[in-house]
Amino acid sequence: MKIAIYGYGNLGRGVECAAKQASDVELVGVFTRRAPETVKTLTGVPVYAASDILSHREDIDVLIICGGSATDLPEMTPALAEHFNVVDSFDTHARIPEHFVNVDKAAVASYHIALISCGWDPGMFSLNRLYANAILPDGKDYTFWGRGVSQGHSDAIRRIPGVADARQYTVPITAALDAVRSGTMPELTTREKHLRECYVVAEEGADLAAIEETIKTMPNYFADYDTTVTFISKEEMDKKHGELPHGGVVIRSGRTGLSSEHTHTIEYSLKLDSNPEFTASVLVAYARAINRMHKRGVTGCKTVFDVAPADLSPLTAEELRAHML
Amino acid sequence: MKIAIYGYGNLGRGVECAAKQASDVELVGVFTRRAPETVKTLTGVPVYAASDILSHREDIDVLIICGGSATDLPEMTPALAEHFNVVDSFDTHARIPEHFVNVDKAAVASYHIALISCGWDPGMFSLNRLYANAILPDGKDYTFWGRGVSQGHSDAIRRIPGVADARQYTVPITAALDAVRSGTMPELTTREKHLRECYVVAEEGADLAAIEETIKTMPNYFADYDTTVTFISKEEMDKKHGELPHGGVVIRSGRTGLSSEHTHTIEYSLKLDSNPEFTASVLVAYARAINRMHKRGVTGCKTVFDVAPADLSPLTAEELRAHML
Repeated sequence: MKIAIYGYGNLGRGVECAAKQASDVELVGVFTRRAPETVKTLTGVPVYAASDILSHREDIDVLIICGGSATDLPEMTPALAEHFNVVDSFDTHARIPEHFVNVDKAAVASYHIALISCGWDPGMFSLNRLYANAILPDGKDYTFWGRGVSQGHSDAIRRIPGVADARQYTVPITAALDAVRSGTMPELTTREKHLRECYVVAEEGADLAAIEETIKTMPNYFADYDTTVTFISKEEMDKKHGELPHGGVVIRSGRTGLSSEHTHTIEYSLKLDSNPEFTASVLVAYARAINRMHKRGVTGCKTVFDVAPADLSPLTAEELRAHML
Repeated sequence: MKIAIYGYGNLGRGVECAAKQASDVELVGVFTRRAPETVKTLTGVPVYAASDILSHREDIDVLIICGGSATDLPEMTPALAEHFNVVDSFDTHARIPEHFVNVDKAAVASYHIALISCGWDPGMFSLNRLYANAILPDGKDYTFWGRGVSQGHSDAIRRIPGVADARQYTVPITAALDAVRSGTMPELTTREKHLRECYVVAEEGADLAAIEETIKTMPNYFADYDTTVTFISKEEMDKKHGELPHGGVVIRSGRTGLSSEHTHTIEYSLKLDSNPEFTASVLVAYARAINRMHKRGVTGCKTVFDVAPADLSPLTAEELRAHML
């Protein structure tokens, strides 16, 4: 299977590494909106101008689009689905139905297949919500994120006057996790579920108290949470906060039995050293699946809900039954 | 969707309870090899003789076969797949390929669909092994079972002379779980992964030391494990060990990055108050899926690997994308 990467940031580099691990995947190129000669890939794979992509149509089975959800993907995915089988990681939950409709129209018209909103949330977490809800209809769902870096929250802090750099960690609260795991199905407020830890490098002479106050009272981002703000040096930021770890937990508790007398708890958890590399690994597995589905004649927009698990694996159906069932 | 139950033990009763929770499922009857008039169902659903089942062909969309894996299912599932869409929970891992071939032959010839080896292991644990392997090809798998009652091990103890009753709990060892969760990918022996806790009611005058020795040295079942044997009264057995809890954990750790510098851990865990009721809940969700697949013209033998997640849910594709993705 021949894949290509469209957009070469953290996620694109993650796809490049994941493709190297998959023996049935060949990465034919990276497409970038920057000047190609200024971009150097990790593995030496060739770099092309994004504007040249249509001349590579015959070389690419699946194009993995590594753009941002805010402005890139709503434009890119429908446009590229007119010419390629595509996978994206569109993660603005509220706008997924609208994105689906746009991508579906383009993919159906051109007989391509497109998989949107792939990764871990949306993605593997969504799958686990669906499986657990189908098995335990009488129950309650919980999702916790972290401990991990939230790039959106880090960016929000960086926009405050006097801030040179910032890193925000979302941290699930242990007492809440324990209560959920006990199967008692507690009602939890936003504040009871997660803490927000902020590490901030201030510009020289900045008013630290004002920065801290601005962070802690920022609506939507921090006001509804218990938030800690720690000022650190640029050296400490570079040394201790250079990675992008993340993860989280999806839990569903539910009851069964004639009088709902038995409780069950299903938990799926991820502990990730690198958020973009893990997301990229999910994208490559789903690229394999949609390539197979397209060969069987499937077209249009799909999500992880529509993909039979067997299509994700390089193993044959016989091998899967013998070794994984 | 109309379902029926074939075989009315713990699992059959679990299916009866699970069907009650599914608003789109109607349970039309229970089929038993016992005299039907001697069987009373929990919810008053009618009981029929197993030998009469062919006269109910038109009333049943999916038949859930609740027999044992050792001798019942290898005969029942292929025979019933000639006349019905069926689901079974065949769990003898080593014999799955052979069972698959037999069931596939019967289902293909009669244009039915059959789903075998459904439940949690095989079943949900298998799915999680597959997903995690597809995402993290460079890694290592671990499965822990328990804390829960192993019926096979309990039965093995009951066959020892002088034993009136017994209950065996399989217990994962915390130190091993912690080592696996740390992402260090340890090599673990059988003894390092699980303990076996045995509670035994002895017959009057039985040689307790001899019973304990026989248990602890029993090949395959106990000899490779650290095993504790506790003699208790019949009253304590009935009071404290009457339930069938179970569960377990599937973990995969894997590495990504240009030099495999990042480690990720994916964990799926189940904590079940009632093993048969949870298994039954999985069977009913998959009965929904194979009914839909059959309506789309799919025939032959399938496993959980072949079922797209969306088919398990009573929600529409639009609802799933809007609320679960």
